[in-house]
Amino acid sequence: MGITLEQAEAAVKAAKAKAVEINTLMNIAVVDAGANLVAFARMDGAWLGSVDIAQKKARTARYFDMPTGEVGKLSQPGGSLYNIEHSNGGLITFPGGIPIKNGEGVIIGAIGVSGSTVENDNTVAQAGVDALSQ
Amino acid sequence: MGITLEQAEAAVKAAKAKAVEINTLMNIAVVDAGANLVAFARMDGAWLGSVDIAQKKARTARYFDMPTGEVGKLSQPGGSLYNIEHSNGGLITFPGGIPIKNGEGVIIGAIGVSGSTVENDNTVAQAGVDALSQ
Amino acid sequence: MGITLEQAEAAVKAAKAKAVEINTLMNIAVVDAGANLVAFARMDGAWLGSVDIAQKKARTARYFDMPTGEVGKLSQPGGSLYNIEHSNGGLITFPGGIPIKNGEGVIIGAIGVSGSTVENDNTVAQAGVDALSQ
Amino acid sequence: MGITLEQAEAAVKAAKAKAVEINTLMNIAVVDAGANLVAFARMDGAWLGSVDIAQKKARTARYFDMPTGEVGKLSQPGGSLYNIEHSNGGLITFPGGIPIKNGEGVIIGAIGVSGSTVENDNTVAQAGVDALSQ
Repeated sequence: MGITLEQAEAAVKAAKAKAVEINTLMNIAVVDAGANLVAFARMDGAWLGSVDIAQKKARTARYFDMPTGEVGKLSQPGGSLYNIEHSNGGLITFPGGIPIKNGEGVIIGAIGVSGSTVENDNTVAQAGVDALSQ
Repeated sequence: MGITLEQAEAAVKAAKAKAVEINTLMNIAVVDAGANLVAFARMDGAWLGSVDIAQKKARTARYFDMPTGEVGKLSQPGGSLYNIEHSNGGLITFPGGIPIKNGEGVIIGAIGVSGSTVENDNTVAQAGVDALSQ
Repeated sequence: MGITLEQAEAAVKAAKAKAVEINTLMNIAVVDAGANLVAFARMDGAWLGSVDIAQKKARTARYFDMPTGEVGKLSQPGGSLYNIEHSNGGLITFPGGIPIKNGEGVIIGAIGVSGSTVENDNTVAQAGVDALSQ
Repeated sequence: MGITLEQAEAAVKAAKAKAVEINTLMNIAVVDAGANLVAFARMDGAWLGSVDIAQKKARTARYFDMPTGEVGKLSQPGGSLYNIEHSNGGLITFPGGIPIKNGEGVIIGAIGVSGSTVENDNTVAQAGVDALSQ
């Protein structure tokens, strides 16, 4: 199903390092190509409500193979995917979830981060993605 | 796990007194630092639908360590946390949920109140918080 | 809907006193005639998993107007109500839930207690019931 | 809230090492004193259905402050806690979940392991616990 635990833990480690660097406390989740959880970490003192949100962001990013914020642009009132958040046991469609690709551009999983502003969440998620593309 | 039952019951008692003072009928819930229920009271004749809302407000306030209304400002259409309510088995993001801190400023739980206007709900919740800060 | 908050809190208080007397830590829930929560208390250090069980016991006792243990006798494999626990979002059918009646024998609510052996749970629940029949 | 992420990751690491030693593929979850997820890892090729089971085992162990298998002894047909699994959104009551204590014997969280026989699950969970007691 794509991403290995070793890769997922490397993504979590890089995300944690970025979270520390920008002085935030994050929940970080990585799912595989089947949208099933592979690795998770909650930094000490990070929001409890973000345990679920980080996982939902990771799943949402893999469910639709795009960053969660892209889905959110379409799920607004009047949008083409209005209230898509009601599906799949609950989606999160604001930024912080990003697909993870292998060297050939094939999606092998996704990362979801929650605990701060959506800009910070996305920055930390991207750090996780970048750790695997180098 | 932070708040004790004695403290939680003192918060509920103060909230009930404030509800009587402003002539409202409230549901009042207190959760601990782990977002687990500690104490609850529904005043005679208060809305049945608020049994769940009061508890969700208390959990939401602890999940994100801020008053529920603050989350709601960000979860509107077009907002950065649009539809966050779909997470955690359902959040309530309008006013009426407030974190409870100890003397050192550490969050030890939260209170959620529901049964009237959100302004009244918040006033009653604040009375519960104030009872523990004196 | 029957039981008042004042009565429910009296039942919780009596149950707590009995719990202390027999050296246990309990979660105590009281529902009204509509099976909706009226009062709840978790003693410091009581099992977190009993938050839900105490409430389910109270609801189960009111749903079927009998002590939860009576339902459990019928829900065993081969029994006439086998696996009734799957209904109503989850029932708890072992002892610790008891209907509460008014002076005329009309059921006005129920109490559910969880946190120790089912014998202790039932003893504490009965203390709550007895407080209202005197 | 008890256990730190550093401690939780040390428990996961020790559990993984034991899983490799006994030639199994495991899902490993650690929750804090509030029964909220702190760390998770699924070994490559481990059962997908165990993602949820490992987390439910960890929560169940903390919910009742005992190894999950102890709950399961009482939840059998005819047992005093028959069908307790219907509470708390689903419990897992066979072995593989164990509370984690600090040096003073206070429970600071729990570990849940799933992916093999319950004997192996429990062995791997115990390795996680032991890593923190040394």
